[in-house]
Amino acid sequence: MVEQYADKPIKLFSLTSNLPIAEKISEVSGIPLGKVSCRQFSDGEIMINIEETVRGDDIYIIQSTSFPVNDNLWELLIMIDACKRASANSVNVVIPYFGYARQDRIAASREPITAKLVANMLVKAGVDRLLTLDLHAVQVQGFFDIPVDNLFTVPLFAEHYSRLGFTGEDVVVVSPKNSGIKRARSLAEVLDAPIAIIDYAQDDASREEGYIIGEVEGKKAIIIDDILNTGKTFAEAAKILERGGATDIYAVASHGLFAGGAADVLEASPIKDIVVTDSVLTKERVPENVTYLSAADLIAKAIVRIHERRPLSPLFAYQKD
Amino acid sequence: MVEQYADKPIKLFSLTSNLPIAEKISEVSGIPLGKVSCRQFSDGEIMINIEETVRGDDIYIIQSTSFPVNDNLWELLIMIDACKRASANSVNVVIPYFGYARQDRIAASREPITAKLVANMLVKAGVDRLLTLDLHAVQVQGFFDIPVDNLFTVPLFAEHYSRLGFTGEDVVVVSPKNSGIKRARSLAEVLDAPIAIIDYAQDDASREEGYIIGEVEGKKAIIIDDILNTGKTFAEAAKILERGGATDIYAVASHGLFAGGAADVLEASPIKDIVVTDSVLTKERVPENVTYLSAADLIAKAIVRIHERRPLSPLFAYQKD
Amino acid sequence: MVEQYADKPIKLFSLTSNLPIAEKISEVSGIPLGKVSCRQFSDGEIMINIEETVRGDDIYIIQSTSFPVNDNLWELLIMIDACKRASANSVNVVIPYFGYARQDRIAASREPITAKLVANMLVKAGVDRLLTLDLHAVQVQGFFDIPVDNLFTVPLFAEHYSRLGFTGEDVVVVSPKNSGIKRARSLAEVLDAPIAIIDYAQDDASREEGYIIGEVEGKKAIIIDDILNTGKTFAEAAKILERGGATDIYAVASHGLFAGGAADVLEASPIKDIVVTDSVLTKERVPENVTYLSAADLIAKAIVRIHERRPLSPLFAYQKD
Amino acid sequence: MVEQYADKPIKLFSLTSNLPIAEKISEVSGIPLGKVSCRQFSDGEIMINIEETVRGDDIYIIQSTSFPVNDNLWELLIMIDACKRASANSVNVVIPYFGYARQDRIAASREPITAKLVANMLVKAGVDRLLTLDLHAVQVQGFFDIPVDNLFTVPLFAEHYSRLGFTGEDVVVVSPKNSGIKRARSLAEVLDAPIAIIDYAQDDASREEGYIIGEVEGKKAIIIDDILNTGKTFAEAAKILERGGATDIYAVASHGLFAGGAADVLEASPIKDIVVTDSVLTKERVPENVTYLSAADLIAKAIVRIHERRPLSPLFAYQKD
Amino acid sequence: MVEQYADKPIKLFSLTSNLPIAEKISEVSGIPLGKVSCRQFSDGEIMINIEETVRGDDIYIIQSTSFPVNDNLWELLIMIDACKRASANSVNVVIPYFGYARQDRIAASREPITAKLVANMLVKAGVDRLLTLDLHAVQVQGFFDIPVDNLFTVPLFAEHYSRLGFTGEDVVVVSPKNSGIKRARSLAEVLDAPIAIIDYAQDDASREEGYIIGEVEGKKAIIIDDILNTGKTFAEAAKILERGGATDIYAVASHGLFAGGAADVLEASPIKDIVVTDSVLTKERVPENVTYLSAADLIAKAIVRIHERRPLSPLFAYQKD
Amino acid sequence: MVEQYADKPIKLFSLTSNLPIAEKISEVSGIPLGKVSCRQFSDGEIMINIEETVRGDDIYIIQSTSFPVNDNLWELLIMIDACKRASANSVNVVIPYFGYARQDRIAASREPITAKLVANMLVKAGVDRLLTLDLHAVQVQGFFDIPVDNLFTVPLFAEHYSRLGFTGEDVVVVSPKNSGIKRARSLAEVLDAPIAIIDYAQDDASREEGYIIGEVEGKKAIIIDDILNTGKTFAEAAKILERGGATDIYAVASHGLFAGGAADVLEASPIKDIVVTDSVLTKERVPENVTYLSAADLIAKAIVRIHERRPLSPLFAYQKD
Repeated sequence: MVEQYADKPIKLFSLTSNLPIAEKISEVSGIPLGKVSCRQFSDGEIMINIEETVRGDDIYIIQSTSFPVNDNLWELLIMIDACKRASANSVNVVIPYFGYARQDRIAASREPITAKLVANMLVKAGVDRLLTLDLHAVQVQGFFDIPVDNLFTVPLFAEHYSRLGFTGEDVVVVSPKNSGIKRARSLAEVLDAPIAIIDYAQDDASREEGYIIGEVEGKKAIIIDDILNTGKTFAEAAKILERGGATDIYAVASHGLFAGGAADVLEASPIKDIVVTDSVLTKERVPENVTYLSAADLIAKAIVRIHERRPLSPLFAYQKD
Repeated sequence: MVEQYADKPIKLFSLTSNLPIAEKISEVSGIPLGKVSCRQFSDGEIMINIEETVRGDDIYIIQSTSFPVNDNLWELLIMIDACKRASANSVNVVIPYFGYARQDRIAASREPITAKLVANMLVKAGVDRLLTLDLHAVQVQGFFDIPVDNLFTVPLFAEHYSRLGFTGEDVVVVSPKNSGIKRARSLAEVLDAPIAIIDYAQDDASREEGYIIGEVEGKKAIIIDDILNTGKTFAEAAKILERGGATDIYAVASHGLFAGGAADVLEASPIKDIVVTDSVLTKERVPENVTYLSAADLIAKAIVRIHERRPLSPLFAYQKD
Repeated sequence: MVEQYADKPIKLFSLTSNLPIAEKISEVSGIPLGKVSCRQFSDGEIMINIEETVRGDDIYIIQSTSFPVNDNLWELLIMIDACKRASANSVNVVIPYFGYARQDRIAASREPITAKLVANMLVKAGVDRLLTLDLHAVQVQGFFDIPVDNLFTVPLFAEHYSRLGFTGEDVVVVSPKNSGIKRARSLAEVLDAPIAIIDYAQDDASREEGYIIGEVEGKKAIIIDDILNTGKTFAEAAKILERGGATDIYAVASHGLFAGGAADVLEASPIKDIVVTDSVLTKERVPENVTYLSAADLIAKAIVRIHERRPLSPLFAYQKD
Repeated sequence: MVEQYADKPIKLFSLTSNLPIAEKISEVSGIPLGKVSCRQFSDGEIMINIEETVRGDDIYIIQSTSFPVNDNLWELLIMIDACKRASANSVNVVIPYFGYARQDRIAASREPITAKLVANMLVKAGVDRLLTLDLHAVQVQGFFDIPVDNLFTVPLFAEHYSRLGFTGEDVVVVSPKNSGIKRARSLAEVLDAPIAIIDYAQDDASREEGYIIGEVEGKKAIIIDDILNTGKTFAEAAKILERGGATDIYAVASHGLFAGGAADVLEASPIKDIVVTDSVLTKERVPENVTYLSAADLIAKAIVRIHERRPLSPLFAYQKD
Repeated sequence: MVEQYADKPIKLFSLTSNLPIAEKISEVSGIPLGKVSCRQFSDGEIMINIEETVRGDDIYIIQSTSFPVNDNLWELLIMIDACKRASANSVNVVIPYFGYARQDRIAASREPITAKLVANMLVKAGVDRLLTLDLHAVQVQGFFDIPVDNLFTVPLFAEHYSRLGFTGEDVVVVSPKNSGIKRARSLAEVLDAPIAIIDYAQDDASREEGYIIGEVEGKKAIIIDDILNTGKTFAEAAKILERGGATDIYAVASHGLFAGGAADVLEASPIKDIVVTDSVLTKERVPENVTYLSAADLIAKAIVRIHERRPLSPLFAYQKD
Repeated sequence: MVEQYADKPIKLFSLTSNLPIAEKISEVSGIPLGKVSCRQFSDGEIMINIEETVRGDDIYIIQSTSFPVNDNLWELLIMIDACKRASANSVNVVIPYFGYARQDRIAASREPITAKLVANMLVKAGVDRLLTLDLHAVQVQGFFDIPVDNLFTVPLFAEHYSRLGFTGEDVVVVSPKNSGIKRARSLAEVLDAPIAIIDYAQDDASREEGYIIGEVEGKKAIIIDDILNTGKTFAEAAKILERGGATDIYAVASHGLFAGGAADVLEASPIKDIVVTDSVLTKERVPENVTYLSAADLIAKAIVRIHERRPLSPLFAYQKD
């Protein structure tokens, strides 16, 4: 596939947060990874050297802003600065996991909106375009005035569960909290399944009061969320679903952080199998029953389409067989 | 109350979209409405003349960007421009109903994000601060980098229904669509009531397939949404709830547009009583069973607190008796 | 002619204010009009969907900001936003009639400069270039820091009147007010005719005192202005010229708004024939004696030259036969 | 008068282009001139040292951007930069003569709009407000988005000629070219006099063909323009007026540059008396029959009003006795 | 001392990098530290809650951007964002140690200028003013267009060594590398001592070739640098000076990072005593022979002067007894 | 050589400050100089007309901002404005001598940072890229956020002195002041020579106290600085070196201004030969013993490489034979 655009000045660079997905994207797209050295000095400062010319090129930088998020963000900002000063034609960032996305509103007095701050910092540093995957809230696209392509993961998951035969009224797609129900609705539509919600009387407080809205008894439940962080939301939801009579419980998330001992929490829960994409390369232990579905193919196709100035809309559709 | 800050250079102006709420805000706050003339010429162009000095003053401009939204927005932008050039110290806009707020994301390929565009236009014109009421999505705050105070209407509604004794397990608060469930959750918390959701299999398409998630049978149902536009969402939800066995059906919305024949639609529905605030002065016929709860007191208090540099946080809390 | 640049990614879109001129421009240039849907909801909000890819393309959007000017401006701003977010390479706006252009200065204390505000809004929304026709004041070009090409209509009119033999000392070109004399001077130069001015003692007040500066007796008078709005300025000037002994009276304007009953006013005046371009598609009745000269050819040539990166200067010259 | 606001942190600085007017402004307003040293090194670079604290102060910098305009502009920009970095609260520039104002439009292909460039440079350097005197074109106000107060000189001139009894039908106010007729109209209104125009068939070319539009025979003619540069426009107009039968010829301009041997040209012309303000301190010889009317009083009043946040509108009105 | 300005709305906050210096600044200035909570979640994301109102206040945020520099920078940026959105009147950052300052130029092809990037990020986030201490290169002030006050440490050190009697020809002030000689020159001037330089033939490469330019034999040598990072530069310089015949060797640096095992390196060197300020709270072991001179008094005075709008210039002078 | 890229739309323009170097650059690169007329009117205002189309072209403007620096800067800014408005694709400025570069920091209270101001003005006017030669301080690159290529002159000088056999321990490279030592270090490295410094006890005050740090006795001394302005720094250094026993004294500077009688001062000094580049076309008398080394070849190569999007890094290296 590489011949098609090998003569065009596109360059792909990976920073340090998720080299495996970058390598897969490179492999699928046929665009080799450029040479760049990222060092962190003993005082914590990051130094980046781009080791090949980028003058006049369209640069794509792959970096998930997962843990350690602050280091990864600075690494990304510094790389953008270096590319701009080195006369890159355009700087496109590919952020499979967009950290700080949950801080997207002022929930209590005098809170920051850190997701907007991150957006402002990226743009001010010189980003021309953002390619990302399943943003926590779609409104975050509007935090930018540059083009943002937000790829969806639901088609990946839909295909996975369809292949397993998880469709129809025997299945229920569950949102583990009363936000995020849109994601459950999307997956349910493809699987021809109903949805349910785990609701908590006091939103951010005492979690023991959770209860189910909707019908789960005797059904296979697939809990879906965008971010699997400590695993507690999933584990809690699974317990409530078990009590509610769900026969088998599955969980799926776009981004698997597995932070703060998530593996233990999840392995102790009634969840049979957990699906996540490879958007995050976690440094934590991952539970044994995790299946990774790679988003590299989707991202690679998007990069190639962007570079060839072809529409991305075909990538957003899900075709049932 | 005016004495308290009459010596400070604050000026309050109302544009043409909702003079009644402006007059109430003026009355409650004790800040007189400044003199401004807004004319629209025969070619549709708007001309604004501020008829008293604003030099060095903190200006608060009240304008809901409801129908005709485009005229109202230009009127607002032109007024901001005039204030800035006339050496106002600061320009604060009070937008009880923030139009275009639903266009806050790219739902299909090549869509605009008009809510962000409106935010950008306001800021570029020279706005220093925004005071608004129950934004469609809280993330819209992040579309701005200026201070945004987003007042809540749920406490107003909670007080109203509490006074009527609509609390506890006999009541269910219903979100008429699977987004906006947060608003139902907030009201339900104060009323100690459970929530339910009307879900549609195909989100923006064939509405007849709506069904209830949650328990409504034998309960008083309060349907809650932020915007009451054509009334169809409410009427449809009411029909489904009636079929589901709800005993009495009520509806409440922050912003009552009543566009496109909403009065007929709603009067034909099983909704007993509809509550909205006076954020919008509609030019359309309003159903007979509508109760207006004024947001003027809340907004007036917020303006006074902002001007006196006292925190707004007390305005966000709801105190049960 | 299309072959010449059909392989280049140029796209032409018309919004809703003046589809006929857009169609002529499309026809002359050989560039087809792209598919776009512009709807206005019952609450007055505009929704735009671009129905073909614009990724990497140079977009030209045709929209006159005539009545209803505020709707037309928002339609334009929203389209610009959509193009930018959909990764258009550049967004060029073609505004045959640039509304609000007369609000280009502070005439009385605390007035806005709405023409500058419009310029700022367009640029902030993402416009890269403006192509327009006979701006009310040439200084408005300086309200922008992007390239602005301001096409002249005087050559069109000069050709028209030359063809009719309206040249030499028998003719006088008249400015109907003491501003805008430059436009009369330009037309007079080509027609080898003198100029005259209608002056009013109190500029913006009691119009009955108008008198002629210059010689008109026994001459054919051509009154010229940029904007024909309500027709009153032309009708008044014509009466004064008739009293002053002009033999035949003609009128020409770049932009024919015909607002506020202009047809009646003009038909009751001694003006024999009125010439305007098709820059505005008025919703009002047009007087019977109006001749439309199309500016579509000029605009089409300009678009093609801009796209092919050839100079526009040849379009500004007038060649006498 | 100083007591009134001596406790407020206002500071007035004069740069080097027109110290006499600055001293008069200081005297009238009672605000002493601050200490600043402006040196020009042997390589032409300007170095500015502000020799007293400006921290937290509202700074007013007086500088006409007359010859040598480029040096004077850089001196001004550098002073602005120094004030900003030294933590001035606001930087207000007072430019009695705003150079480059005539380059306010693109008259021929590929011309700059230098007046806009100057505006952009001032704003980018950090100006918060501009106070100026009789801008060449009022549209230049719109080149700025900061507050611009453009003081008028016509009231000064009207008072002068009224005192001399130059009013009524015996007088004609003449615009020496077909632009700038608005200024003649304004003066004529106060003097109850008619106007006339000197028109040239080829606008910027062969000047010998000038002729009069309007009646001047047997009248005292007052030629009015904003800028008296080389004196040629005035001298030429005077010759034409003399030929046309004007009895006495006077000339008045807001800004007297007297460049390129203007004194000789004007002394050889039939102009009896020339009036200018002291907005420019010319380094050239001034004709003997020049009367200077100081604008210092007007400017001083404006500065005081701005600082005290009182409206400037009273300064714009002319009161006949 | 607090009474002096306690009625003014100033608030001082410390973030987490250097609480001890913040507490000293608070104590000296009499301004209490405001309540703010900074948490880092298990996924590395920082959440800040300002626990008291900042509406209308002038905020001073104390944060050294030392190790972990990326976390500390984000903490600072997020705090700035929160303050801005919470309607702070101004946001002033106090950065005793400004990290990334050494990346102030492009030393090799395609390098970033991270110090400028940091400046841009701070300003974009909303900083109004920066107060810092002994910037690595004074040109970094020019990376900002906001006011920057760069306090000097040399007077602190001069006073210290003067008190010890280290003055005159017996002493030599040594720059340990051929940049930074200005700092040595400044200290030498106060101590009436000559200077010397350690030069390396290959600037950034093989360090063993260092040699002394200037006279050190028989003198007390004070090596001075701005940043003491790993200690290697100091240790190497000390060895060369010992070989060169210096009798006693001292070292002084503005910022003591002590990274990467500096304590061991320095204790193994012939340096008798090391002086640093408390600008950095290192997490590393500090050599035993380190003397901390607090910069808190200087910073506190600067904050008070800035807030009271009094000049800072007196703080920059060193008065010998 | 022109064929290689003659089909690409690159245009080279020279403004008026240094036409000879522009002509050499044109000759070497094979890119003809475009037609532009720069006039200065009698009132000092500059008018620029670009006399050929620049639409869609990449423009390179050559202008040294040497004496008269303020005129030259405005000429450059106006040309940039004209290019941008005339739809140039990109505007690249080539500034062989970057004036005001020494005002790069606040040396005393309330000083401007004029080098940053110049950078801001250039960028705001519309510059896309800067190519310059031996900036006074490399940090000035960080004053820009656009790509800046700063060419080095040391390789030119190194080649010159190597050819003369000025290498090894017989030679000493001398910095005539304690800043700028990096430049001496660079030249010394190539010549395998040691360095020395002329130090002054009171930096900017009484110069008679200068003394040498380092060994010069019996050596050929090459004094190196970036800017040769009045010649006093060089003459003074030469006297001190002569007293210190240097056998022959040479001087080299990147930029030869020769301002304020430099020729007399230098001819009276013991300097045998002075080398400068042709970056500045001085209007002053040049000493007889000046050798000009042209930088035109280096600059031409850089322009060609930038235009062809090839890396500039090879131009920065010095190859010994």
